[in-house]
Amino acid sequence: MVQVENKKELLKNAFSGSSRKAREVAIDVIEASLKAVDPREVIKAKINLSNATLNVDGRTFNLRLFEKIIVVGGGKAGGPMAEALEETLGDRIEEGLIVVPKGTASQYHTKRIRFHEASHPIPDRSSLEGAQKIMDLASNAEENSLVICLISGGGSSLMTLPKAGVSLSDMQKMTDLLLRCGATIREINTVRKHVSAFKGGQLAKAAYPATLLCLLLSDVLGDPLDVIASGPTVPDTTSYDDAVNVLKRHNIWDKAPQSIRRILLDGQKRLVEETPKPDDPAFTKVHNVVVGNNRLACEAARNKLKEEGLNVLYLTSLLEGEAREVGIALSSIAKEILASGNPAPPPAGIIAGGETTVTVEGSGKGGRNQEIALAAALKIDGIDRILVASFSTDGIDGPTDAAGAIVDGRTIVRSRNLCMDAREYLGNNDSYTFFEKLGDLIHTGPTGTNVNDITLMIVL
Amino acid sequence: MVQVENKKELLKNAFSGSSRKAREVAIDVIEASLKAVDPREVIKAKINLSNATLNVDGRTFNLRLFEKIIVVGGGKAGGPMAEALEETLGDRIEEGLIVVPKGTASQYHTKRIRFHEASHPIPDRSSLEGAQKIMDLASNAEENSLVICLISGGGSSLMTLPKAGVSLSDMQKMTDLLLRCGATIREINTVRKHVSAFKGGQLAKAAYPATLLCLLLSDVLGDPLDVIASGPTVPDTTSYDDAVNVLKRHNIWDKAPQSIRRILLDGQKRLVEETPKPDDPAFTKVHNVVVGNNRLACEAARNKLKEEGLNVLYLTSLLEGEAREVGIALSSIAKEILASGNPAPPPAGIIAGGETTVTVEGSGKGGRNQEIALAAALKIDGIDRILVASFSTDGIDGPTDAAGAIVDGRTIVRSRNLCMDAREYLGNNDSYTFFEKLGDLIHTGPTGTNVNDITLMIVL
Repeated sequence: MVQVENKKELLKNAFSGSSRKAREVAIDVIEASLKAVDPREVIKAKINLSNATLNVDGRTFNLRLFEKIIVVGGGKAGGPMAEALEETLGDRIEEGLIVVPKGTASQYHTKRIRFHEASHPIPDRSSLEGAQKIMDLASNAEENSLVICLISGGGSSLMTLPKAGVSLSDMQKMTDLLLRCGATIREINTVRKHVSAFKGGQLAKAAYPATLLCLLLSDVLGDPLDVIASGPTVPDTTSYDDAVNVLKRHNIWDKAPQSIRRILLDGQKRLVEETPKPDDPAFTKVHNVVVGNNRLACEAARNKLKEEGLNVLYLTSLLEGEAREVGIALSSIAKEILASGNPAPPPAGIIAGGETTVTVEGSGKGGRNQEIALAAALKIDGIDRILVASFSTDGIDGPTDAAGAIVDGRTIVRSRNLCMDAREYLGNNDSYTFFEKLGDLIHTGPTGTNVNDITLMIVL
Repeated sequence: MVQVENKKELLKNAFSGSSRKAREVAIDVIEASLKAVDPREVIKAKINLSNATLNVDGRTFNLRLFEKIIVVGGGKAGGPMAEALEETLGDRIEEGLIVVPKGTASQYHTKRIRFHEASHPIPDRSSLEGAQKIMDLASNAEENSLVICLISGGGSSLMTLPKAGVSLSDMQKMTDLLLRCGATIREINTVRKHVSAFKGGQLAKAAYPATLLCLLLSDVLGDPLDVIASGPTVPDTTSYDDAVNVLKRHNIWDKAPQSIRRILLDGQKRLVEETPKPDDPAFTKVHNVVVGNNRLACEAARNKLKEEGLNVLYLTSLLEGEAREVGIALSSIAKEILASGNPAPPPAGIIAGGETTVTVEGSGKGGRNQEIALAAALKIDGIDRILVASFSTDGIDGPTDAAGAIVDGRTIVRSRNLCMDAREYLGNNDSYTFFEKLGDLIHTGPTGTNVNDITLMIVL
């Protein structure tokens, strides 16, 4: 189970019994929330086999009705998800293939499900091969087959399958063009899905008439099914016309690779098939189930805080905004708790999940969560009864080896004693160096899951 | 009583019965919160005369013990506060003088309390005269006098009294230097208080041995008494050494006006008196009472929302951060309410008071609250059940004639129909123009009070 590895060091930085208590609670809560979204745990918690009935978060599948069970999918959490699924279904699984990041397959031990290693985050030939193998397995599934698809973060690049005639470098070039012109994720996906042979419901279409059960570990706020891994099992509501319009609206049609323009124009002329739409019969046999997401991690945090006897407020699992400003805004809630007992009287715990952004202007090292924590530290300076911890559930906050950081009312004075100016570190986006020197980074190592970030405030 | 003047127009922009209901509730809540912090209302609510006993928010003063009641003070809300006080105390007031902004005195009608008009926000000779008259009145008060001091926003510039030898332009030059080098408000006040003959407890010292009751309408988040109007009735904990250090730390000592350097050096040598410290006997006879603040406005909003049957969450009265990022972060809470019923199930009302900042990068017209609303509109686009209203309690959001704006799930689509790109308007800091075209500005006119801002979210 994932643990906070530097617990001792974090507790050593406590300045009083109550400060130590707050740090202990924070560490317990972090571990509890990470446990709840561990890829093995989510499969074990949501999938249950009783006699020949498979219960999936309230839905039931009578396995006697299926001749074969085939497992497909991919993502960074594919390995442990596959292991846990095989532990539940055992030899009922006929065969399976899961695409995982290069160099990770040997960690996982399964009898029926094989692993295919592919490149991440930049797809290469191995990603194509993986996606093609998944498509072959799905296409060969028959009406009385149950195809179980395991999707998690990274699935989109691990399983990349451009339409015939489009090269990987053309795909990459187009994505870069779209990113540079400020296209939204929805616009980028509209184009991508129409150039792909896998995304935008096309895996579901291939599996039809088999029954398809897709288990998703969501790394996108609010779990929009068509966005997670670009929605290979979800109807697409956009058209070739929309894709062309996106490129024209952003004035990059002429710059787009020739192969991509040809596919899109052929699509408009109906010479190439559309992505499957919501009324496609394939979707009558598709069940998409989110087995883990930020909300699940937040709820585990809430339960742990309640267990510890705190008044708990779970604000959101959809938090967005510039990290440092979010840190400032959240601190104001913790301060109000002390000032007036609103929105909950102390001892209180506040949970805010989501994913903020960092506009990099300096040359330092840091991450979203470390910036939230540093900005909060400046706002709670001198207030002994507040602790703020912010962490990424994948254990990797920005380009650092830490999940996040813990701050309290003594963080700034301790940094001053080390001759550090917190404002300077924040201005230089150097939160990692700041917290490394203080020993207040949260180290969990890579957790193997990713359901975004959680900020936790404890007011004792 | 202050009202939302364009209520009809705001209701016309509703797109459904429930949307109309949300707008009605929002307008009622805005009016209720503004009423609660109206300068007349706060005096009437917090000051009560029964026989010869003056009750002030729980404290009692037996007026039989005092021979004279003298009223002093100043601020933008000085007029109505003085009127309300005189309505309560009548001829028990011996005399009084309140400094108010130029051109406003004729609106107020009092028998005992006179008004002195002074310049705001840049002090001039009239501000000096006002402060000097207040000091004279306080100094002449005797042991058996009760001096009632009324302080509200703007008091610091309306009552400016540099020490002998320091000119107003020297004061201004020094403040500009401090602001430009990024000094904190606390650092600026440290210098100011030591160059002033009024701020930093010196009014209290002048009134001693009279009893001093200071009623403050707070325009500073968290009501730090030493910051509101630079704390003329509050002990100062900083020294001449601190003031010199502030200037040296920011490398502006050599640039500071000669007159100011001389005062500070003389102060260090104890040739000029220190500001009164917490152990000064003067403060044994001082009672500082905050009669109105952002929290009071938030609590009135909360009560109104409860009356309307909503589940209410009063998050904070200490909200800070970049306005647009705060708008994004707050929206995430409203969206969670719809998604999971956390932190409160619908119908729900969320209140967040405070004062955000706007980093101006464009050339448009707008304010803090209008930017919060515009950023929120982009995040709740298409979600019919959420309304966000943000407003300044003084009725003047930024350099505009509006208090703020109301947005909902249809704001963005309505703006698109008028060929407006909301992101462009936000990028250009042009939120006022955006909302003016939509008819979604909140117009109250100047309210005569200032307890910062309130953002309100309603989820039906």
